[in-house]
Amino acid sequence: MNTTFAEIITIGDEILYGQITDTNSQWISAELDKIGVKTIRKSSVGDDETQILDILKEASQRASIILITGGLGPTKDDITKKTLAKYFGANLVIHEPALQKIEELFRERNIPILESNRQQAAIPDNATYITNRSGTAPGMWFEHEGSVFVSMPGVPHEMKVLMIEEVIPRIHSFFSTPIIHHRMIKTFGKGESLLADIIKDWEDNLPENIKLAYLPHYGHVRLRLTGIGQDEATIKQQIADEEAKVTPLIHKYIYGYDNDTLEENLGKLLVEKGKTIATAESCTGGFLAHLFTKIPGSSRYLLGGIVAYSNEIKMSRLGVKEETLKAHGAVSEQTIREMAENVRERFGTDIGVASSGVAGPGGGSEEKPVGTVWIAYADENGTYSKKLMLTPDRQLNIEITANVILDLVRKKQQGLIQ
Amino acid sequence: MNTTFAEIITIGDEILYGQITDTNSQWISAELDKIGVKTIRKSSVGDDETQILDILKEASQRASIILITGGLGPTKDDITKKTLAKYFGANLVIHEPALQKIEELFRERNIPILESNRQQAAIPDNATYITNRSGTAPGMWFEHEGSVFVSMPGVPHEMKVLMIEEVIPRIHSFFSTPIIHHRMIKTFGKGESLLADIIKDWEDNLPENIKLAYLPHYGHVRLRLTGIGQDEATIKQQIADEEAKVTPLIHKYIYGYDNDTLEENLGKLLVEKGKTIATAESCTGGFLAHLFTKIPGSSRYLLGGIVAYSNEIKMSRLGVKEETLKAHGAVSEQTIREMAENVRERFGTDIGVASSGVAGPGGGSEEKPVGTVWIAYADENGTYSKKLMLTPDRQLNIEITANVILDLVRKKQQGLIQ
Repeated sequence: MNTTFAEIITIGDEILYGQITDTNSQWISAELDKIGVKTIRKSSVGDDETQILDILKEASQRASIILITGGLGPTKDDITKKTLAKYFGANLVIHEPALQKIEELFRERNIPILESNRQQAAIPDNATYITNRSGTAPGMWFEHEGSVFVSMPGVPHEMKVLMIEEVIPRIHSFFSTPIIHHRMIKTFGKGESLLADIIKDWEDNLPENIKLAYLPHYGHVRLRLTGIGQDEATIKQQIADEEAKVTPLIHKYIYGYDNDTLEENLGKLLVEKGKTIATAESCTGGFLAHLFTKIPGSSRYLLGGIVAYSNEIKMSRLGVKEETLKAHGAVSEQTIREMAENVRERFGTDIGVASSGVAGPGGGSEEKPVGTVWIAYADENGTYSKKLMLTPDRQLNIEITANVILDLVRKKQQGLIQ
Repeated sequence: MNTTFAEIITIGDEILYGQITDTNSQWISAELDKIGVKTIRKSSVGDDETQILDILKEASQRASIILITGGLGPTKDDITKKTLAKYFGANLVIHEPALQKIEELFRERNIPILESNRQQAAIPDNATYITNRSGTAPGMWFEHEGSVFVSMPGVPHEMKVLMIEEVIPRIHSFFSTPIIHHRMIKTFGKGESLLADIIKDWEDNLPENIKLAYLPHYGHVRLRLTGIGQDEATIKQQIADEEAKVTPLIHKYIYGYDNDTLEENLGKLLVEKGKTIATAESCTGGFLAHLFTKIPGSSRYLLGGIVAYSNEIKMSRLGVKEETLKAHGAVSEQTIREMAENVRERFGTDIGVASSGVAGPGGGSEEKPVGTVWIAYADENGTYSKKLMLTPDRQLNIEITANVILDLVRKKQQGLIQ
């Protein structure tokens, strides 16, 4: 079985000059990895014909799949398409269905169409046009001297839709790739090394064709099992067997699998149990409510919430007692419990959750340094509260706190915390 | 004056397979840009001798500065140092001050030192050792056939300290660099092609040593002016002159410059005017409040907000009239105006803003398809409301709506909308 090699090229002066971080190449290589295509190099070059021609030539000597993003917008600094035409000795011609799509999009949005927008429908005459559902820049598929070249827009969400819906299936059917099967076990609340310690014996005894990777991110650790082999059914069974062995060891940290997210699975759990919830946020400032409401259909369980940023609002809109705030401060067990209990009562929900903390960078004291956060959960059985000691970083503190609260609701609903 | 060219090489299988996003190369190129060194290519290769040897050779033919990160840790997959020795035909020898530093660090931390840790003090005998203050992996400076090679650890905070304190000053004293000056003009609310159309004549008449780039992102378009030349004062003046010419053409879309963000500048504006604000969110579900509260010090103007996701909460917690909801629905001009006005009144703020829309993917109708969003702004002078027709994508609709509201508050405060 031969390995198929890929190279990823991201084009744009803004990448070279460090004005944006290229996240496309990370995402693309992770997708290629899932289908057994090995990325052997990633390169970024500027909006410059010579630089682009050079890298195309070099990449085609090393890899049989060359994936390119960027440089397809309507303004004149976008030269990828012209350079591709030159590289392949092709002519740029207007692709009629592409033009129709662009014209339609502008009609729908009721914006005047410009010649530069029309020119986006011009593609090299050796290219297979790939529809970009979410924008006006076309995707293009080229076959040239045994290699495949794919050019995609640099806007991440446009590129991702194009990759998933069009490019990956085409690569699948064009190249013969080995059978690879992945299973992602998603955990929260236990650090990478502690998890590794718990499952060490199991990990040491994994079959040779099954690999384990730890992918940590902000309190989450994803465990990825990857099996490689000849026969799909056999690999899937092997992975299912290993999953069955490891699950009992880390059961309470697992919130989902594969593409599951904590917020999505929690949503399903709340729907299943017929529970409603309301949020009272101080330090998370709306981000917790956002994690709930980003999920389609979340209105079935998240009825609403309050961002009570000032003490006045904590009192007037959330009914926290003045004595409580005076005696204990906003970042305290007493305040957080009132916040969770009161939002539950005022919004008429089954569950109320709350956050209050010193997110930073300012506002810390010796007693309550930056990163001190209180969270609480209230339901008909009573109120649970907990103190967290987090980081010096504001954004991290906001994200971790919101995720810890989601995971707390999950554990409460699953009976893992009394 | 000759331009000094640099290449950045990041080494690591974890980058190639998409398990981490490489942020080092973005940061390094931004630093190089500040001292007039032009990055002409960025490459990522795996922990593989052949791949590393190849890229070193290629890079040295294009650039006179080659900056390398990664592959210096104590584990066996880190082979950068050995490969560098091979590339230069040098021998690895223990560097005594480096060894002392490592032994000291382990003594301080009270951890037993392993042979693999001692070997971190071995460097190629043609290298100048650069002290790494924050870790055990050494920095190394090589001069070879007219090029400079620098090898640095991959851990971002270690690399950054090394770059700032050691590498940048050395590059400064080694190379004579051209003068480069950037100016970023940040706009919101007008698409890339429409902006390009408005400023076409100006753009066509830019001096040859000044380049313009459009960097669009979710309703934002950043215009980047880059000037290259002999004399700093002259270039800065040229760019200031061009900025003065283009500003009147696009004045009302400009919210800031360089590293400014919309939410940060809006915050400054509100502080300056002594205004307070409260949010009433339906379709943005907390994300708008989050954009305010992610800014340190935002408690000076954002007193709080309500996420009123269900109609019941819109009535009970926000005082929207039942008749209004019955007659016009939640996504309507009448409802949005009551939301903005009521949140202002109930939270006692100068300004109230509100969002209500069909974020999608479900919930659309012929009359109100997915992407239909109403926004409103209320202050002591009255209420302004507007209908937006956005996209089929939920996350995009949330982000765009929240940003449009921020920009609306800015325009109102700057007197650009009556």
